[in-house]
Amino acid sequence: MTKINAMWQQYPRLAPELTATLTLIEKNIKAHDPEVTAAIIDMIHAGGKLLRPAYCLLFAQFHETDRKKMIALAAAVETLHTATLIHDDIVDESNLRRNQPTIQARFGKDTAVYAGDYLFVVCFKLLAHYTSDLRSIQVNSNSMERILNGEIHQMKMRYQLSMSLDDYLLQIKGKTAQLFSTACFIGAYESGNTQSFVRQSEQIGMAIGTAFQIVDDILDYQQSSATLGKPVLEDVRQGVYSAPLVFALQNANPELVELLKKRTALTPAECEQIRQLVVAAGGVTAAQKLAADYTQQALTAIHKLPAGAARDDLEQLTQQLLTRKY
Amino acid sequence: MTKINAMWQQYPRLAPELTATLTLIEKNIKAHDPEVTAAIIDMIHAGGKLLRPAYCLLFAQFHETDRKKMIALAAAVETLHTATLIHDDIVDESNLRRNQPTIQARFGKDTAVYAGDYLFVVCFKLLAHYTSDLRSIQVNSNSMERILNGEIHQMKMRYQLSMSLDDYLLQIKGKTAQLFSTACFIGAYESGNTQSFVRQSEQIGMAIGTAFQIVDDILDYQQSSATLGKPVLEDVRQGVYSAPLVFALQNANPELVELLKKRTALTPAECEQIRQLVVAAGGVTAAQKLAADYTQQALTAIHKLPAGAARDDLEQLTQQLLTRKY
Repeated sequence: MTKINAMWQQYPRLAPELTATLTLIEKNIKAHDPEVTAAIIDMIHAGGKLLRPAYCLLFAQFHETDRKKMIALAAAVETLHTATLIHDDIVDESNLRRNQPTIQARFGKDTAVYAGDYLFVVCFKLLAHYTSDLRSIQVNSNSMERILNGEIHQMKMRYQLSMSLDDYLLQIKGKTAQLFSTACFIGAYESGNTQSFVRQSEQIGMAIGTAFQIVDDILDYQQSSATLGKPVLEDVRQGVYSAPLVFALQNANPELVELLKKRTALTPAECEQIRQLVVAAGGVTAAQKLAADYTQQALTAIHKLPAGAARDDLEQLTQQLLTRKY
Repeated sequence: MTKINAMWQQYPRLAPELTATLTLIEKNIKAHDPEVTAAIIDMIHAGGKLLRPAYCLLFAQFHETDRKKMIALAAAVETLHTATLIHDDIVDESNLRRNQPTIQARFGKDTAVYAGDYLFVVCFKLLAHYTSDLRSIQVNSNSMERILNGEIHQMKMRYQLSMSLDDYLLQIKGKTAQLFSTACFIGAYESGNTQSFVRQSEQIGMAIGTAFQIVDDILDYQQSSATLGKPVLEDVRQGVYSAPLVFALQNANPELVELLKKRTALTPAECEQIRQLVVAAGGVTAAQKLAADYTQQALTAIHKLPAGAARDDLEQLTQQLLTRKY
């Protein structure tokens, strides 16, 4: 039985559509090997939040539209997201994701490479079969290029103690916000809204995605591995420096810098020490302010959209993401 | 300066188009990191044979067509091929390809994962921007799914001593012949040929690709690592059993079976021993017959196409691939 995250109970109009999205994804995963198929289905069942398809579906609610088509396109968005997660876990050598072993930890990196590739193809297939025109395919392909370049940028900026806030924002706009923006584009465009509405939707998606990633990065500095579903500050050991740390590094902090130089040799105790140093340096507070700014930017733009249930849900969800604890 | 394989000097009508294809691929590789970009460009320069774009362009010569568009689509085909090679090298842990270190050997598997992903996206972008309609995108996405499933099938059939000829053919139809078939489809379809011509082109591509892969697999049993550009029988150590070995295993051969059970522990001397046992058991001869059969099937079908320079080139190239020594 397909089960979506409990948070969607607050959105009774959206919940059945998200359940249908998840069911459709499952139906489309038919890799020529039961192990690969099971690995992917497990990962999908492990409870991704389905935020990207949710925004896609919400932006499709401003206009009469073909529900079946929009669910298929929302499924394409989530499939692309899952593909990038699987490949990121290979690059980061991550063993845990969503409180369970990653595909590469369970089945090895060969299965993980092909499982990710397979999901890219499923995404491509869903887009090809349900999109209304080539223009949409073109926008999606351009946005995929930006997402990949965001990932590559992050990989190349590893362990850069000189990383600036602009570097960080460029990175998360690529690796995270772009897909939120694309999800909103697809929802708005494919349901037949005006060009100016579509452009606004893309911009709102970019602001929401940026805020979402900053909050995600803040949670790394606030939570235990049990609540988060992955080891605390594992990203820092891997050289991925996010907003709280980037802010903390703006004030010369020799103790912090010395610890970071240990790179993968960092122990759990030292990671905890880094966490406390970053909090003490005001890194988390500054990042919270930044996330609130992007959320406010999104909410202001959302409030200019036509009033109604879709707009209400958009506002509630966007606000909720800022204050989430998981 | 873009340089294509010397074999294309025999095809003066095709050579400039292949040069243009290679130049266009280079122009499209703009990853957000000089290292990743350079790694991909190096791999492309290392001299792939460009057979898939060649067949795409040849099948586009039966009809008046937009040359720029066909070159872009031929570039998409080669880009997809290169993407699969990069990811295959991760899965196979290969260190050499085309006589030079693989991307994963030079830059690590993280760069290789993203380099392959990036090329998938470039392929998708080229298709999205140059294809004439959604139908073509749909066919391409279905064929990509078959290619991926062929790779997954091969991965899962590793070290299976009971592998049958049908298993082998299913595998190579997916991992190799499907892309040849797609290349022919794109050439024929996008240049505006009839539905029946397009269908024939796809079938011809499937036969050519099957013959090509069998010959490729035969060469592993005939050549030294210097001429081949990669270690001899490395695939066998990795558990990938191809036509000559599958034929040799049809007659119970305890010595061969015992050696194969050593799997990755096989030494170069033992690989050489396997090679000789396979040749002595008639595995190479039987595989040659199989490749000749598929080539003949392709040639018979090609001969039914409209006479002219394009058909002549198709016949010559397909014949040449059967007797190639590299």
